[in-house]
Amino acid sequence: MAPTPTPEDRFSFGLWTFGWTAADPFGGPTRAPLDTVKAVHKLKELGAWGMTFHDDDLFPFGSTDAQRQKAIDDLKQACADTGIVIEMVTTNLFSHPVFKDGGFTSNDRSVRRFALRKVLRNIDLAAELGAETFVMWGGREGAEYDSAKDINSALDRYREAANLLAQYVLDKGYNIKFAIEPKPNEPRGDILLPTVGHAMAFINTLDHPELVGLNPEVGHEQMAGLNFTAGIAQALDHGKLFHIDLNGQRGIKYDQDLVFGHGDLHNAFSLVDLLEHGSANGGPKYDGPRHFDYKPSRTEDETGVWESVKANMSMYLLLKERAQAFRADPEVQEALEAAKVYELGTTTLAEGETTADLLADRSAFEDYDAEAHFNGKGYGFVRLQQLASEHLMGARG
Amino acid sequence: MAPTPTPEDRFSFGLWTFGWTAADPFGGPTRAPLDTVKAVHKLKELGAWGMTFHDDDLFPFGSTDAQRQKAIDDLKQACADTGIVIEMVTTNLFSHPVFKDGGFTSNDRSVRRFALRKVLRNIDLAAELGAETFVMWGGREGAEYDSAKDINSALDRYREAANLLAQYVLDKGYNIKFAIEPKPNEPRGDILLPTVGHAMAFINTLDHPELVGLNPEVGHEQMAGLNFTAGIAQALDHGKLFHIDLNGQRGIKYDQDLVFGHGDLHNAFSLVDLLEHGSANGGPKYDGPRHFDYKPSRTEDETGVWESVKANMSMYLLLKERAQAFRADPEVQEALEAAKVYELGTTTLAEGETTADLLADRSAFEDYDAEAHFNGKGYGFVRLQQLASEHLMGARG
Amino acid sequence: MAPTPTPEDRFSFGLWTFGWTAADPFGGPTRAPLDTVKAVHKLKELGAWGMTFHDDDLFPFGSTDAQRQKAIDDLKQACADTGIVIEMVTTNLFSHPVFKDGGFTSNDRSVRRFALRKVLRNIDLAAELGAETFVMWGGREGAEYDSAKDINSALDRYREAANLLAQYVLDKGYNIKFAIEPKPNEPRGDILLPTVGHAMAFINTLDHPELVGLNPEVGHEQMAGLNFTAGIAQALDHGKLFHIDLNGQRGIKYDQDLVFGHGDLHNAFSLVDLLEHGSANGGPKYDGPRHFDYKPSRTEDETGVWESVKANMSMYLLLKERAQAFRADPEVQEALEAAKVYELGTTTLAEGETTADLLADRSAFEDYDAEAHFNGKGYGFVRLQQLASEHLMGARG
Amino acid sequence: MAPTPTPEDRFSFGLWTFGWTAADPFGGPTRAPLDTVKAVHKLKELGAWGMTFHDDDLFPFGSTDAQRQKAIDDLKQACADTGIVIEMVTTNLFSHPVFKDGGFTSNDRSVRRFALRKVLRNIDLAAELGAETFVMWGGREGAEYDSAKDINSALDRYREAANLLAQYVLDKGYNIKFAIEPKPNEPRGDILLPTVGHAMAFINTLDHPELVGLNPEVGHEQMAGLNFTAGIAQALDHGKLFHIDLNGQRGIKYDQDLVFGHGDLHNAFSLVDLLEHGSANGGPKYDGPRHFDYKPSRTEDETGVWESVKANMSMYLLLKERAQAFRADPEVQEALEAAKVYELGTTTLAEGETTADLLADRSAFEDYDAEAHFNGKGYGFVRLQQLASEHLMGARG
Repeated sequence: MAPTPTPEDRFSFGLWTFGWTAADPFGGPTRAPLDTVKAVHKLKELGAWGMTFHDDDLFPFGSTDAQRQKAIDDLKQACADTGIVIEMVTTNLFSHPVFKDGGFTSNDRSVRRFALRKVLRNIDLAAELGAETFVMWGGREGAEYDSAKDINSALDRYREAANLLAQYVLDKGYNIKFAIEPKPNEPRGDILLPTVGHAMAFINTLDHPELVGLNPEVGHEQMAGLNFTAGIAQALDHGKLFHIDLNGQRGIKYDQDLVFGHGDLHNAFSLVDLLEHGSANGGPKYDGPRHFDYKPSRTEDETGVWESVKANMSMYLLLKERAQAFRADPEVQEALEAAKVYELGTTTLAEGETTADLLADRSAFEDYDAEAHFNGKGYGFVRLQQLASEHLMGARG
Repeated sequence: MAPTPTPEDRFSFGLWTFGWTAADPFGGPTRAPLDTVKAVHKLKELGAWGMTFHDDDLFPFGSTDAQRQKAIDDLKQACADTGIVIEMVTTNLFSHPVFKDGGFTSNDRSVRRFALRKVLRNIDLAAELGAETFVMWGGREGAEYDSAKDINSALDRYREAANLLAQYVLDKGYNIKFAIEPKPNEPRGDILLPTVGHAMAFINTLDHPELVGLNPEVGHEQMAGLNFTAGIAQALDHGKLFHIDLNGQRGIKYDQDLVFGHGDLHNAFSLVDLLEHGSANGGPKYDGPRHFDYKPSRTEDETGVWESVKANMSMYLLLKERAQAFRADPEVQEALEAAKVYELGTTTLAEGETTADLLADRSAFEDYDAEAHFNGKGYGFVRLQQLASEHLMGARG
Repeated sequence: MAPTPTPEDRFSFGLWTFGWTAADPFGGPTRAPLDTVKAVHKLKELGAWGMTFHDDDLFPFGSTDAQRQKAIDDLKQACADTGIVIEMVTTNLFSHPVFKDGGFTSNDRSVRRFALRKVLRNIDLAAELGAETFVMWGGREGAEYDSAKDINSALDRYREAANLLAQYVLDKGYNIKFAIEPKPNEPRGDILLPTVGHAMAFINTLDHPELVGLNPEVGHEQMAGLNFTAGIAQALDHGKLFHIDLNGQRGIKYDQDLVFGHGDLHNAFSLVDLLEHGSANGGPKYDGPRHFDYKPSRTEDETGVWESVKANMSMYLLLKERAQAFRADPEVQEALEAAKVYELGTTTLAEGETTADLLADRSAFEDYDAEAHFNGKGYGFVRLQQLASEHLMGARG
Repeated sequence: MAPTPTPEDRFSFGLWTFGWTAADPFGGPTRAPLDTVKAVHKLKELGAWGMTFHDDDLFPFGSTDAQRQKAIDDLKQACADTGIVIEMVTTNLFSHPVFKDGGFTSNDRSVRRFALRKVLRNIDLAAELGAETFVMWGGREGAEYDSAKDINSALDRYREAANLLAQYVLDKGYNIKFAIEPKPNEPRGDILLPTVGHAMAFINTLDHPELVGLNPEVGHEQMAGLNFTAGIAQALDHGKLFHIDLNGQRGIKYDQDLVFGHGDLHNAFSLVDLLEHGSANGGPKYDGPRHFDYKPSRTEDETGVWESVKANMSMYLLLKERAQAFRADPEVQEALEAAKVYELGTTTLAEGETTADLLADRSAFEDYDAEAHFNGKGYGFVRLQQLASEHLMGARG
């Protein structure tokens, strides 16, 4: 059986996940909205630690100040009653028609100004609630047609917005960092900053890159056919894994937002292994919330919603158990050694060795037996993958 | 640990799989050719039951008759010595430059005639060796450019070839059936009969459709983003699953030919479950060989080659164990019942009920409470998937 | 400039296309509903010939009989006033929560009965309006999880439904044929009958295959990375191209439903060439409506909606002009000859030639110079593609 | 007809492109090797300006010093005779078995040292020949299995290599910059630095980021479903477009390396428009070589090879003509204005405006009429795309 989640696991859920009423491009909602306060209590009961939300999840677009405040106060009370933490807040710049061409990079300048105001207000709320991460998913920042969007101007405007917001947080003294969430497409034909890589490259052009990192989502990278674990490793290398969105995706298609582990299981296994243990040679680890951004399938009713919440946590904990056993297995360690995985942790030049030394080392080139790598010197990677597979399947003790 | 394979498992391997010398589009071979006789003995030692080959695998294109006969005789002796069965034979119509625009559907008529002759000769050999399946993978039957190939003429020529070959087998009284292997692309930009569906539709236009079925390959369907298990279920429904190629693929990209189960693990689980047990409501099962068509990674030497042969069989047997436990679990059965999976086995109209009866049944439409399906009547599919996942991971006893 | 459309072009539009109010998975509608009668008049004004609809497009799910009749009467009058033809009708079995697990293949038998009733009623309406094609898109017939759907039972139920409906049309004497519309995924993780091929194979298992064909959609096949023109050629070969859905898609991602020709332009060119002229060697042609199933981008208002309607027709007519010039160009004909495209129209065996004759023809095999295909006997396909590209770009006079 | 290329167009070709002998994963070569000197003369005759090569293209792996020098001397003479420029050089770290697990990031340290030596030697040659760009495509830097490669260590080793090489160029005083070429997969299951974005993010972690930029390839980004033009715009924004590889790709599949413009034609059009004119609001432009990295299809003989060389240049020049007409068309300019494409060039905050000013501007938020964007304020993007399409097709004067 799967282990039981506890607050120490730091599992967190978006209000829009279990709260999704299940409208999709070809059909209306199949579920009624949930009561936020009851949902917070339910999360607590199931072992979660945190919750996150978009402004419009908590109080609909166009709410009066009083309606908005009521919703905030109710949430605060529910958190106080349960100990559930609001660890991240984000802004909806994609649902209302005003954002049909984006928020920060809409071709319409008045929309860009409106978007900035909406975000600034929401940052104040995030600070008020103690959230330390502010996610920016630019889902509508993009285009269907190449001539419809001047990408260079769009990057300028995105940068203008990110710089302004970072300065605002500094000026206010908020303990908040930003996390950009990349996605390649949907709902736009092509979205700006489509992958973990594009977003990190962009961040390097900002005034305060130290305040901006990533919130990568499993399915978003897999929608581009990319290896999520490898992307996360690069984000860790660059010090940019500020937050994470765990879910499941079955290949290159529409954004499925399945339960974590219900998609590419091998990659979920290596991801949990990396998040929990760091890389084989002791690279950087992630110590933030384990945040789920998924959707309970449209076929489910409320019972199924909470089953799916539980399934996310169960899958993570099961994979963690499997990864621990994998790391601890002496046969795995021997296979990693044989595959020279540890040897990659050694620098290519010896300590103090110069390029001139390398050039003078005939054993490195002139006398090197490159042909020994034909029909020999195999890496044993398939055996390693088989060991990983057997651990994943719980087939080794 | 994984169970030990035995001949009763009917595991079979292509000679070109463990025998692959590992040249790829960006590099030459990394392994020397294997000796076929030794390989047959090794297969036996590892628990396999059968072997298959292309003509050119056994004797290179352009061999003299004597060279060819020597290779055949050696193989026969090795089979006699080991009990290894040659269950399938296939023809290489794709490697030599003569086939650069295909075999049966080359624009060059002389090539088509050459291809037919090559196949006819190989069918005789298949019959001589007792193979009951003759696979046709039309890897070069296709095009990169839409105007370069008249698809309608190509289908005519393919049909001409298939009809001629079927008649040949009938005339000769051979106990051989044909199995078409679909693939969407690679090495051609687009290949004719790209999926399980296209091939089955084409077979229905042949003179002897009863003699022609499919040899679907896991990775080939997944290269089109299709669900392999669902495709196999349709092939079983249509009585066309004559043979199968098991391997692994990680999404829509080049043809990876990984070890079975090293790709999409959830789908491998449901596939083994279907092959071994038939569908939940007792649909048709597959009783042919469990044939692996994969490539040992180019990083491996001969040790890794045999490790990868073992890994294929281990993965299949482990998945079979997991599927058996899944089917036997009362909680799973209850969840399948709750999800109405068994109810789909019941006809929509009652026995003897007519369309007129249905039209007269007000409970079916006029008085039907469609709204009850909003915020209720969930299917519990996520719970079912979680149970499947836990069985797959060996986490339920 | 693009040519002007006329009714002779037989352009037809779904009511749900220009009528789409532009809600998507991440946002609500950006446009108000259009008045159907005004829209019919607008279509006429722009040069269209026909219109099509789902029942729920014309009268919302749950309409009273009176509301439904009023909508039908208004439509009839508008058609009478304009000459717009209702050439196809289809049923919405995907939007309402009752269909959350499908219609014909829902796990819930009562839903399947409800779906059949909804379709039967709509067939009566189609006959009343003179539509000759009845499309069935099983968008919800599928699953996200392999264990949630017994595919073999689902195919049984789909077949039960199709057989019942075909018999109904025969019994009623309606002049209606059915056209199945395949799609690989979205809104379900995997949809039953995912491609043109799978649907044609299934049709062959029906009681009245002659009454059931296909309504392939450009984007749906391209979502599986398949060549749409090649699929249409196979459908023509099998006599199954009953109807067509023209639109645009930019690769493997969510269903974009762009304007025809705003996606893969090379493939749109070869498609129009095939539809208008048949294959190079004179294969079967399509003579049905040129039907557009697309969505005006969510960024557009009503002006943009009608611009997009015009753009579909303009692109088709421009491509038709380009294809005519391509076919008529003597240099193209010479290049097709050089590439042996016409030679593929010749049977591989000569008239009256037997397999025995082929086996006796030493020039076909024993004396054949296969090596001449190395470093020679090139096909000239790139030149042909360049000629096609220049015609497509209007660069050859 | 397509315009005639001249050296002023700065068209350049890899020696491995026209020189490809057309072996692929399923077949051997169909063409004999070309003589390099003759090929240089042929390039000149066809209007090209430059040529590029991998070390192993010019002198096979394992050549003696004398053989190597002879090949270099012959090339120098051919360049002197023709005026063909060697504008870029790159190193083959992927074909020989020694590199089966990569070069800079091989798990085997001795391989990493060998790779560095091979590259250092090749940099000296690049300098000697006057090449100003040194491309690094890490085709084998990757893995098939997540546990086989410690990505964090691999990035460390890649960085070690890049830093060493940059320092070497500085120490030597060479006028050379490095350009990393990203690719998502093939020949490895997943390749390190899979996209333009990932590579730019990595470059920012180097000791001398100013010396390292990108060599993006059309097909490589499109293999991840990404918009190439958008990626190039971001590379230009970040000052990292050091070189470019032009070719064609038809969607997410194996690396096709088609002629430029024979793949996604709309995207090729917007790319040429961007490269030639910069973005609509005057963003940065590219002034480097127009370099083709493609493969003449395996069906072609030498005649077809040179036809394909011509086709690349013709397509580029035709697209350039079309893009010039597009930019010059007053109706296009009006449509760009209407679509507010130019408005995106305006900063969101006015000059001198502060965040406090924005917060105080009630017209930006409190009084803003967001609802006006429902059913109004359409962007006219479809009309713009239609104008682009008509220009691309040569249908507007």
